[in-house]
Amino acid sequence: MNPTPPFLRACVGEALARPPMWIMRQAGRYLPEYRALRSQHDFLTVCRTPSLAAEVTLQPLRRFALDAAIVFSDIMMPLEAMGVEIDFSPGPHVRRPLRSVADVDALKLPEAAAIAPYVAETIALLRPQLQVPLIGFCGAPLTLAAYLIEGKGSKDFSQMRRFMYAQPAAFGRLLDVLARTMARYLTAQVNAGAQAVQLFDSWAGLLSAREYARFAMPANRLILAAMAPLGVPRIFFAQDAAALMPQVMQLPVEVLGVDWRVPLQEVRAQVGPTRTLQGNLDPAWLFAAPQQVAAQGAQICAAAGGPHIFNLGHGILPQTPIEAVHALIQAVRQGPDLRQGAGQA
Amino acid sequence: MNPTPPFLRACVGEALARPPMWIMRQAGRYLPEYRALRSQHDFLTVCRTPSLAAEVTLQPLRRFALDAAIVFSDIMMPLEAMGVEIDFSPGPHVRRPLRSVADVDALKLPEAAAIAPYVAETIALLRPQLQVPLIGFCGAPLTLAAYLIEGKGSKDFSQMRRFMYAQPAAFGRLLDVLARTMARYLTAQVNAGAQAVQLFDSWAGLLSAREYARFAMPANRLILAAMAPLGVPRIFFAQDAAALMPQVMQLPVEVLGVDWRVPLQEVRAQVGPTRTLQGNLDPAWLFAAPQQVAAQGAQICAAAGGPHIFNLGHGILPQTPIEAVHALIQAVRQGPDLRQGAGQA
Repeated sequence: MNPTPPFLRACVGEALARPPMWIMRQAGRYLPEYRALRSQHDFLTVCRTPSLAAEVTLQPLRRFALDAAIVFSDIMMPLEAMGVEIDFSPGPHVRRPLRSVADVDALKLPEAAAIAPYVAETIALLRPQLQVPLIGFCGAPLTLAAYLIEGKGSKDFSQMRRFMYAQPAAFGRLLDVLARTMARYLTAQVNAGAQAVQLFDSWAGLLSAREYARFAMPANRLILAAMAPLGVPRIFFAQDAAALMPQVMQLPVEVLGVDWRVPLQEVRAQVGPTRTLQGNLDPAWLFAAPQQVAAQGAQICAAAGGPHIFNLGHGILPQTPIEAVHALIQAVRQGPDLRQGAGQA
Repeated sequence: MNPTPPFLRACVGEALARPPMWIMRQAGRYLPEYRALRSQHDFLTVCRTPSLAAEVTLQPLRRFALDAAIVFSDIMMPLEAMGVEIDFSPGPHVRRPLRSVADVDALKLPEAAAIAPYVAETIALLRPQLQVPLIGFCGAPLTLAAYLIEGKGSKDFSQMRRFMYAQPAAFGRLLDVLARTMARYLTAQVNAGAQAVQLFDSWAGLLSAREYARFAMPANRLILAAMAPLGVPRIFFAQDAAALMPQVMQLPVEVLGVDWRVPLQEVRAQVGPTRTLQGNLDPAWLFAAPQQVAAQGAQICAAAGGPHIFNLGHGILPQTPIEAVHALIQAVRQGPDLRQGAGQA
């Protein structure tokens, strides 16, 4: 009766005539209706209130023919249950950044039900309202550790790197407790109705391949292994990770997210013909003329060379013009014949 | 009478028993004597006053047995002659960021003598006082363009990427005029006495290989070609450029700087046995215990596998403990036998 939706078919390796498509941070500041809702409620209130988080999740789907929804939240939200206090202005600020071994060892491993329970509630609220699959997500342990130690966004997260080299055992414990917490948190999201999960490793590119293998990979594997019995597709997205691709490729995931820096055809050559790739238009392209945006979208579809979920190569930027998003979606949905024409334009 | 110094011998491909060594940003905030001088004079005053810039250049050489000096300045200083106003707080702030084609086309191509002339004066002042070679430098055009368009440091320089995609012709003209200015500026530095030159492409990692090849490489080549007749070694340092290494390797330079993310032995395998490599200890390592710092320094010396100039993989961090720098220098200078022991510790 209900055929499997294109997004889930692509997740498990089906190469479709036109790739399904969603947009990282598709519910966000570039949408006037999001800004209108945010003018009434602050960011944390929206995250913590299932009716508001569900409303924001649905906003882009009313406007655009997208193939998946992703629950509105932030990667930092589950850390509150570990004993971390967080503000947003607009990026995350950790009130007391972790700077000592004692700080790390004071973190709690919370019960699943205590970890941002409003996210599972939002998922349960959303599912009956959705015509497309719903994606749950969490931050990868390295990226969460980067914010916890640095305290906020940074160009180089040097505090995190200092801690990693000076206190490698404690850094390893930090990534482990984060991984165990994220495994519980994602499991709760799937139990509530999430039909796929994505891990965001936004700061993967801060580490050399040696440190990534030593610290980040075991933590990633712990989460992904915990997801295996749940039977939902797993997506792993690492940013700025060209040098880490040989390891990231080995992760047990159905879908490999690719950031804008790496040509999709190169990743395809490395991973072989069957793995699903997700990505990877640079979100900054959406500020070019609409026909240029369309041509770039078409080029990426042509470059995928196998199972593909179209997406940006990172989160959509707050000032993105809505018309550019329309042009992109139209180009991706036109299918290969028209796309070829656009690609030659 | 004066044998060629180890730094210059290594630059032209000699593999020495112990690698010569200098430290990116070796004159800087981690030194108490630098902070004392800065408490009397603001950053721009130090840059623009040859006696002060020379004093700051000499400070690390009085304290440490380093094999090269690098003139104290900032990559943004030559842009003032193009009509750009810059403040520091402490990073660079461009008063009127370039946001339109007209902004780009309003930039001047200055005469060599007008481009931060105090840098050449500082070099002339320094040379008679130095026992080691003096390095001149400039920013690579892409990195300068990133600051000019964004206006300041950024995690993702999305304004720059937006401009690049939306106005590719103007972006190309911007990199070209920057390259022509930098060629004149570096030539003036060499004429004043600089014995080697380094290009810093700190934000290379923002671009995909396609865009780097299209925009950044021609500009890099223009500068490096202008340096060729001057007969001084050329060093190219790109940060976060693992995916760009195949192109960067093709640049006509004597020395390839390697950031901390890429293992030196991998770069060696790519470039072959004769090219000089410079790098690449993560500056955050200097916050670990001194014997760990020493062991890491020794590992990097062992990994170089050919002509090598020891350096950090990026600029030294402001809070770096002086003792760690001593431990690192001692480890690198101990030579291969003792280094092997340290490497096994």
